[in-house]
Amino acid sequence: MTARKLTFIPGPIEFSDNVLNAMSTPSQAHTSPEFVKVFQDTLIKTRKLFNSTTESKSQPFILSGSGTLGWDLCGSNLVERNDNVLVLSTGFFSDSFANCLRVYSDNVDVLEAPKFGDTTDLSALEAKLESKKYDLITITQTDTSSGVLSDVKSIAELIKEKNSDALIVVDAVCATACETLEFDNWGIDFVLTASQKAVGVPAGLSISIASARAVEKALAKEKPTTFFTDMKRWIPIMKAYEAASGAYFATPAVQLIHALNVSLDEILSEKGTIEERIEAHKAASDEFKSKLINELGLQLVPNSLDIAAHGLSVVYYPEGITAGALLSKMAENGFTIAGGIYKDFKDKYFRVGHMGVSAVGERKEELNQCYEALKLSLAQLGYEKK
Amino acid sequence: MTARKLTFIPGPIEFSDNVLNAMSTPSQAHTSPEFVKVFQDTLIKTRKLFNSTTESKSQPFILSGSGTLGWDLCGSNLVERNDNVLVLSTGFFSDSFANCLRVYSDNVDVLEAPKFGDTTDLSALEAKLESKKYDLITITQTDTSSGVLSDVKSIAELIKEKNSDALIVVDAVCATACETLEFDNWGIDFVLTASQKAVGVPAGLSISIASARAVEKALAKEKPTTFFTDMKRWIPIMKAYEAASGAYFATPAVQLIHALNVSLDEILSEKGTIEERIEAHKAASDEFKSKLINELGLQLVPNSLDIAAHGLSVVYYPEGITAGALLSKMAENGFTIAGGIYKDFKDKYFRVGHMGVSAVGERKEELNQCYEALKLSLAQLGYEKK
Repeated sequence: MTARKLTFIPGPIEFSDNVLNAMSTPSQAHTSPEFVKVFQDTLIKTRKLFNSTTESKSQPFILSGSGTLGWDLCGSNLVERNDNVLVLSTGFFSDSFANCLRVYSDNVDVLEAPKFGDTTDLSALEAKLESKKYDLITITQTDTSSGVLSDVKSIAELIKEKNSDALIVVDAVCATACETLEFDNWGIDFVLTASQKAVGVPAGLSISIASARAVEKALAKEKPTTFFTDMKRWIPIMKAYEAASGAYFATPAVQLIHALNVSLDEILSEKGTIEERIEAHKAASDEFKSKLINELGLQLVPNSLDIAAHGLSVVYYPEGITAGALLSKMAENGFTIAGGIYKDFKDKYFRVGHMGVSAVGERKEELNQCYEALKLSLAQLGYEKK
Repeated sequence: MTARKLTFIPGPIEFSDNVLNAMSTPSQAHTSPEFVKVFQDTLIKTRKLFNSTTESKSQPFILSGSGTLGWDLCGSNLVERNDNVLVLSTGFFSDSFANCLRVYSDNVDVLEAPKFGDTTDLSALEAKLESKKYDLITITQTDTSSGVLSDVKSIAELIKEKNSDALIVVDAVCATACETLEFDNWGIDFVLTASQKAVGVPAGLSISIASARAVEKALAKEKPTTFFTDMKRWIPIMKAYEAASGAYFATPAVQLIHALNVSLDEILSEKGTIEERIEAHKAASDEFKSKLINELGLQLVPNSLDIAAHGLSVVYYPEGITAGALLSKMAENGFTIAGGIYKDFKDKYFRVGHMGVSAVGERKEELNQCYEALKLSLAQLGYEKK
């Protein structure tokens, strides 16, 4: 038990002391040599976060904004009004991404997973890809509403086999730094994420990366559909900072970028790779889920363990336990966890985030404390494993 | 002289210790009671920042994003494709706002000030207003590229007299909290600002307020033109937080909002008004400019003192002093100041920001130190007052 409630929702997560200290970095001009160096370092490390290198001519973006802004970055730059767009939906966030893309295209199809807790059915996807030529297809790597993990590699392979021109877009908001993603090797065209989940930085940064193919499409766009998310305006800025010189389009969030720079140092290994951190998330998640299932007898929302995301656990309330009761009890016991968010299911399940410092970092014991608090809370509410 | 260079550009500014400490607030869930209370307080104080009250049915917005995002908030919600838009330009930032609005309307006129350093000519504006019915007119209260202050009150009165249906929009990015603006009394329809200038908070928040009339137009819009800046999506969220309940569209920047809450406490008086802070900026600016002119013999870019903004001083280099030389010398002497940014004039002038804690707050002595550093730097470069 701690004096302050610990935040174990699927983002914002708990932040390390070093990251929080970096948030208090005294003011620097956004084009000062001191800040330019930090932004350069951060962009270089951001490539590593996505397993990309400069050889692929990919383009990272670090913008001031919520994760949601990444959807508009995709929609406003990579989608034309008549483009055929396909959204593979595994929950609320996939559906919201589709809503965003409908602003930019009149032809947005959604392929829903067979039922809540399922992932995309590959034969249904194959049929879709044979029925129509898509210009852009989105995959939500982890849908934070269901905890379902999409198999981005297999889906991307299938898309390339059947519909090779389609740009492949991955919403990795709740997956970056806790799920495997190889941007260059898998031939992904755009990945969007945010700062406040496994990236380990307070909310306020939209972080993304575009392939050479995606950049080409954005640059070929005749008329911009937005101003702030226009990649044509941002590409020279990001290139300038990565090449160690300042440039101006909109003022970057200096303190958040300092914090991101520190967090990337914490989450990349000494060799500068992200794999170790991802493996640690998988191990922590496996252990936590195993205890939920085996010790507490709870049932996960994802319909099998191999499609359960590793950054959070999404769990049905056991019989007799109501939404409000467990969340309140957990708060009394020192932890903020999250309720459900998907349609009619929203009062039937809860969500526990396990990303970053409290799950795999120097304070990882806190995830065990969270488990103990959950066990205690359920017992206090009269729950007994059957 | 300090170990760290002090940031005296026209934003980001120096931040108070309390604001920087709030940036390190440990994680809170964005819908937790603790954060909901802070966001509510911040929204209530944000109304005071703009001299608005709930009676006017105005709607404040605090979004994660750069100041530039405020232009898209205006363009994507308050402008229809066929609307007639008029931008009153007093420099680079007014022109950029026009570029943003051209994304959303095919009919954007720009009325330029007669020459660089001038403000809008009211008789030219009158002629414009008689020539065409405008749907929306923008005023840049302080154009940070020229240091010119627009007389928003008089311009608004003239617009209402001649073109009463036009929505009046004020870009107050470099004016909020250091220039007088009465949102309700003057009948302004939308004001956009950002966190990193006189509001005194690190970059990363787009802060704005819309009138009942502007909200009505946004809500009447048939099809959204963007997703992230869609007021229809944000209004229920902001209303929920202001009414002390959480709601979700995109994750708010929890730490930046804590910092804004702290800063608003510092800049609003005990009575909860912003006027005293604005008057302090005017006094500090008058004193600084007077020394530049009378002691150093320098010439301001604004063509008269009554149209010189109070948050910064924009000053021509004296003969023999080049852009790079003065900025480097100032850096050696402990201060980051800014160069020019307007077209052919950009190498002819420099800019010193004087907003917030270092100009009118507990560290206001730093503005005097900045002046002394400027005097010293000019002397070191061989400048002598004629």
